[in-house]
Amino acid sequence: MASDDDQAGAPGPASSHDRLVAAASRLLGRQGYEATVVKDIARLGAAPMGSFYHHFPGGKEELAAAGLMWGADRVARVYTRVLDSRDDAAEALAALALEVADDMEESAWRDGCPVATVALESVDRSPVLRQAASSAFMGWQRLIAACLERGGCPPPAAKRLAVVVLALLEGAEMLARVHGSREPLERAADALRTLARASGAQTG
Amino acid sequence: MASDDDQAGAPGPASSHDRLVAAASRLLGRQGYEATVVKDIARLGAAPMGSFYHHFPGGKEELAAAGLMWGADRVARVYTRVLDSRDDAAEALAALALEVADDMEESAWRDGCPVATVALESVDRSPVLRQAASSAFMGWQRLIAACLERGGCPPPAAKRLAVVVLALLEGAEMLARVHGSREPLERAADALRTLARASGAQTG
Repeated sequence: MASDDDQAGAPGPASSHDRLVAAASRLLGRQGYEATVVKDIARLGAAPMGSFYHHFPGGKEELAAAGLMWGADRVARVYTRVLDSRDDAAEALAALALEVADDMEESAWRDGCPVATVALESVDRSPVLRQAASSAFMGWQRLIAACLERGGCPPPAAKRLAVVVLALLEGAEMLARVHGSREPLERAADALRTLARASGAQTG
Repeated sequence: MASDDDQAGAPGPASSHDRLVAAASRLLGRQGYEATVVKDIARLGAAPMGSFYHHFPGGKEELAAAGLMWGADRVARVYTRVLDSRDDAAEALAALALEVADDMEESAWRDGCPVATVALESVDRSPVLRQAASSAFMGWQRLIAACLERGGCPPPAAKRLAVVVLALLEGAEMLARVHGSREPLERAADALRTLARASGAQTG
């Protein structure tokens, strides 16, 4: 059986299209856009190169954009699950930071945000990928704002705080990976509690 | 006269070594490690390739590590200047976020943190660059912790909060660049005030 490193597609009947997209997401999150070559994506996704040419006539950038959106959707499902698991918005946000720490530590800090690296690489080089990254971040901000509103934070304040929450999570994920330590995310969890409470989000 | 885009070295008698390092910092910050080729660094630094081979026998990775450290030192000087400019630690941190927003907006969001992109690219690929990035972040965290202590925050709390402050600044810089908007850094400035005050840092 192929190891996790050799095969990123979901088990079962996933199409070669879907396996390519999942593999792209994994490699882009781990090492970024420029370091990732299509043949490695195809290998990881157990898909022939012909399948790549067929499904992604726009080439590597089109596949990468699909990979970013796929990764963004996966992260959104984690956000939704964790943020819905606590009535107290402050505790929900802290739990999210700690769950991210668990996931990253489990991968020995290899896997982090599936969007961040490509986002930074794209600003000056790829409007397509920059737009995909921006959309991903906006989607996550909306989930965070909804959580804060459910916790009693007034909508305008929830929207303002959501960008801070996402910035803190993203920055802490970067520091955690680079230092190889949970501490930035544990400290972020504490700060998220403080910020959520200061914004008016209360026990729901 | 060469435009800013064509020449990154300081004016005057800077050595070809220093011009290469400054040019590496600029390009790495803007587009990351993998997208940056040495001949573009040499061109931007107005240095012959022979100078690169002479000063950096370890190749591109050695030059990139020097570029990261040079950029880190430059950021540290900005941190020191801004954080020393206010007696109130909460206001000093907010001013730092807003100054970063000014600088990034002035570059039309092309220039951001000179370390972040390479940091994320390096985690799974270059222990040398990952270590350089980690050292850079630790140095900035120490400057932030010292500012919080001067403002009256007890040392252990200052150290814990410094990693949060840096994470928030880095995450907000990323979102600002990707969205092409000052908003994440303006919201970060507000949150930094709240966090510094909650930690015990008071008007100095």
